[in-house]
Amino acid sequence: MKATPADAAFLARAIAAGAGDEAADLVVRNARLFSVIDGSTIETDIAVVGDRIVGVQGEYEGAREIDAQGRVVVPGFIDTHLHVESSLVTPFEFDRCVLPHGVTTAICDPHEIANVLGSEGIRYFLDSSLETVMDLRVNLSSCVPATAFETSGACLEIEDLLPLRDHEKVIGLAEFMNFPGVLMRDPKVLAKLEAFQGGHIDGHAPLLSGMALNGYLAAGIRTDHEATTAEEALEKLSKGMNILIREGSVSKDLDALAPILQPDVSAFVALCTDDRNPLDIAEEGHLDSMIRRLIAKGIRPLDAYRAASWSAANAFGLKDRGHLAPGWRADIVLLDDFEDCRVGPVISGGRLVEPEVFKARRIVSPVGLDSVKASKVQAGAFQVPAASAQIDVIGVVPGRIITEHLKRHLPVADGKAQIDLDQDVLKVAVVERHKQTGNIGCGFVSGFGMKTGAIASSVGHDSHNICVVGADEEAMAIAVNRVIDMKGGFAVADGDEVKAELPLPLAGLMSLESFEDVREKLEELRVAAKGLGCVLPEPFLQVAFLPLPVIPHLKITDLGVFDVNRFELLSQ
Amino acid sequence: MKATPADAAFLARAIAAGAGDEAADLVVRNARLFSVIDGSTIETDIAVVGDRIVGVQGEYEGAREIDAQGRVVVPGFIDTHLHVESSLVTPFEFDRCVLPHGVTTAICDPHEIANVLGSEGIRYFLDSSLETVMDLRVNLSSCVPATAFETSGACLEIEDLLPLRDHEKVIGLAEFMNFPGVLMRDPKVLAKLEAFQGGHIDGHAPLLSGMALNGYLAAGIRTDHEATTAEEALEKLSKGMNILIREGSVSKDLDALAPILQPDVSAFVALCTDDRNPLDIAEEGHLDSMIRRLIAKGIRPLDAYRAASWSAANAFGLKDRGHLAPGWRADIVLLDDFEDCRVGPVISGGRLVEPEVFKARRIVSPVGLDSVKASKVQAGAFQVPAASAQIDVIGVVPGRIITEHLKRHLPVADGKAQIDLDQDVLKVAVVERHKQTGNIGCGFVSGFGMKTGAIASSVGHDSHNICVVGADEEAMAIAVNRVIDMKGGFAVADGDEVKAELPLPLAGLMSLESFEDVREKLEELRVAAKGLGCVLPEPFLQVAFLPLPVIPHLKITDLGVFDVNRFELLSQ
Repeated sequence: MKATPADAAFLARAIAAGAGDEAADLVVRNARLFSVIDGSTIETDIAVVGDRIVGVQGEYEGAREIDAQGRVVVPGFIDTHLHVESSLVTPFEFDRCVLPHGVTTAICDPHEIANVLGSEGIRYFLDSSLETVMDLRVNLSSCVPATAFETSGACLEIEDLLPLRDHEKVIGLAEFMNFPGVLMRDPKVLAKLEAFQGGHIDGHAPLLSGMALNGYLAAGIRTDHEATTAEEALEKLSKGMNILIREGSVSKDLDALAPILQPDVSAFVALCTDDRNPLDIAEEGHLDSMIRRLIAKGIRPLDAYRAASWSAANAFGLKDRGHLAPGWRADIVLLDDFEDCRVGPVISGGRLVEPEVFKARRIVSPVGLDSVKASKVQAGAFQVPAASAQIDVIGVVPGRIITEHLKRHLPVADGKAQIDLDQDVLKVAVVERHKQTGNIGCGFVSGFGMKTGAIASSVGHDSHNICVVGADEEAMAIAVNRVIDMKGGFAVADGDEVKAELPLPLAGLMSLESFEDVREKLEELRVAAKGLGCVLPEPFLQVAFLPLPVIPHLKITDLGVFDVNRFELLSQ
Repeated sequence: MKATPADAAFLARAIAAGAGDEAADLVVRNARLFSVIDGSTIETDIAVVGDRIVGVQGEYEGAREIDAQGRVVVPGFIDTHLHVESSLVTPFEFDRCVLPHGVTTAICDPHEIANVLGSEGIRYFLDSSLETVMDLRVNLSSCVPATAFETSGACLEIEDLLPLRDHEKVIGLAEFMNFPGVLMRDPKVLAKLEAFQGGHIDGHAPLLSGMALNGYLAAGIRTDHEATTAEEALEKLSKGMNILIREGSVSKDLDALAPILQPDVSAFVALCTDDRNPLDIAEEGHLDSMIRRLIAKGIRPLDAYRAASWSAANAFGLKDRGHLAPGWRADIVLLDDFEDCRVGPVISGGRLVEPEVFKARRIVSPVGLDSVKASKVQAGAFQVPAASAQIDVIGVVPGRIITEHLKRHLPVADGKAQIDLDQDVLKVAVVERHKQTGNIGCGFVSGFGMKTGAIASSVGHDSHNICVVGADEEAMAIAVNRVIDMKGGFAVADGDEVKAELPLPLAGLMSLESFEDVREKLEELRVAAKGLGCVLPEPFLQVAFLPLPVIPHLKITDLGVFDVNRFELLSQ
């Protein structure tokens, strides 16, 4: 929802209430305010006018009063990098799902919808960001499509981004994944970097180090959420990057990076989820779970809560939030338990988060409801010529988006390489769904453990073609065709039967249902996948990252199997 | 000097040089880079292209190379609040004087010249800021005049400030001294605060605490350089203010505030000089001397150097500086001694500071060369009626701008109170010099110790009328008239003779000479004042603050003796 206009009339009210001359709009009484500046805890009232805190360390009266009952209160949490699309729900359901976990600001990159719909997708998020209860901020997707080795729904150049740059919710340029383009000084890349000099340019530089990292940073890039080891994070920190510790549903770096969150550097470290699905949010939580685990690992609460609030805000130029003091944004989390980060009532921009505030939102109409344009497929489409004795196989690593590049001897029939369940080698295919090219890239994958059936998804990073993994080609076709029928979604098929499904009609990425309904269907899908013999705890997340051609080592797009290290398609 | 344009061509060069593909413009070899992020020291080259660092932690080649010979290097120091006018030289001489002390960024408030010349004075600083070698930044003077109880040369309202707000060197609104106006919600004050919401509003709130401080902060004010005790600073820190530890020529807070500069809060503490004259700079140094003294007091070098660089930059939204890493501004200080902060070579915005860079500047023509418009005075003008048995006397506190409100029995002749050298009670007067009103405010002062003669100054905060302190009225007239003849300056008179003088023709505040010449004349003035018996080490600084009617407790303006606590003129 829009910020309270900070005009003279508002300032007069804020000053008067802060000084105790007039009643505030809202007062949190009997709070124990935890300072992320100095680590102190002070018993106090907290007075709020509009979306701004106006008084602490004093006694106040307000039009509305909430008794904190001695709870510790901390600043609202800030997710510094995430794709709302990965929650599989609309920004409005994301808002409703995540705010009760204390996340009052989320900086999203609408990268997934941008790959499907281009500017129209980003505008949907910008329009929505003006209506959500949380402060949803947007970084503009910088690398759409991720590579030229796939067919995406859209391509965003600087001309597409410039009209969006000055939107009040835009922070800057989102994760600059195309680090080879930076280092090669690609003119289209330079044009984007130039346009955001002096603003924020979010980084994305997995494993980049040494002189190459220097070149990347010389372009003015300042944040990174792709460090996966403490060593990598410490080099990046020493080179002036803000490190965003990520704990998503697939990429999980908290254990590796927790040790860096020491007192001297906690002002330079923040938290993010990147990609987290509603099941994980329900079962583990969101940033609250990250804080809980950091403290359990021995990180000082001051450093954990500071990283979740002030350091995050500061890294992205949000100077109005991240601390609880007069003049700061009234994003306030009341904790039922401080060290365990059990979130109680939440105040977002001065509003107590309760069902009414969500009901009062103006919901933006969904876009991209007819984005899955592929024609139906047949089992015969999933053929892989046996070009050599050893076949390239994508080796899935559970819980990682990185893959291994395996070689396997596979059975051959009619000159085609065959699925080999004994070696856990299944087929994987990517069916183009944006431009009716009819492209289908086919290959092999190991690590799913399925003995039968197939799972298909219209979520397939970053171009979001339909990705399918199967133990037989018939089931693969059934699953893909069901996804096409649903105009996007997840499907589990066995034989000629669809066992479970979740429609995702908004750009083929997001449900129009509530997050509770989505969560329920995800549980059904999980059970169904397990019924096929799948050994991965999150099979749809792993399927979704098989097409991402910027993450080592072996991936697949609608154009074929892709060697990320050599950055080229394999001929098969 | 203007920043290097960060266009695509520049970015290509920066990236290429950072990655080691091309030679850099400048390389500092054999440096020991001290990180204000993590406190580490790493042996490395530092590569620079234009005004930007492009490489560290590697080996580089450059068109020009400097051998650091193993020196520790730290980020350039940032003075977060100062009045260049207090150095008594032009911005160009200030630049030449202070850069060798490692001060590569100075955030000035042209408050003194603004009180004399209004917008024209601010524009002189903005024009100059585009030419200096250091990065001179400007906060727009917020409270001109300081009060209605004096005659100033100009009055700045929001209409005057708005046309200057978007200048590339403007940071925001300067020290908001009028805290009573904030708390009373004066509409003209609210208009200024409204215009800078979302930008920076610098604070100035001596001794403000509790609910009144809350009201002040609710207006969105974020920094303060007026805390004089650790207790005051800690309350302000806990309420989200950045504390700027000040050590000027008169106001000296370093000893009191050093204890707050602890590891957990060093990201929120910065340094400033506020008002420092060339004598002090020559004898003690500038920010370098503050760092030296902080470390000598047991503050960790990480916290002292961080406060002088990153924390300062961050508090004022200068996200491009304060650390030495690729993508950051090339403000680099090579230290001959780390813990003692002995400054060696300095690089400012990528340029080695040497005589040639100063010679290359385009000097902006001085303004306000005819700003002293008072008519000559006679000794008889300095009369004070003996209105009561006890006469109000301003009690000077050595090295403080705060004064005591004393009462003294004085000799009376013809109904007029008289100077009493035995009690060290001298006369003080303020002669209006802007609008030819003929106003002369007269009163008494104690603490100077002079036995004869007078000292006069056209620098008298904040309205900068001519202030004179004397042991006899004849000498007072001689000194004032010499200041008028010089069109501004300092003068020491004894009997009918001028013993020493320093012309300050630029708005009556600044010399047109070199800082070395000014320093020499100041030494002569100091000797001459001592020759009168003056016991104060810095008599002209103490004279200059006698008219400042916003600092407790008793002051004097051209309208008379002013009780700051009651905020009214005393009738005499």
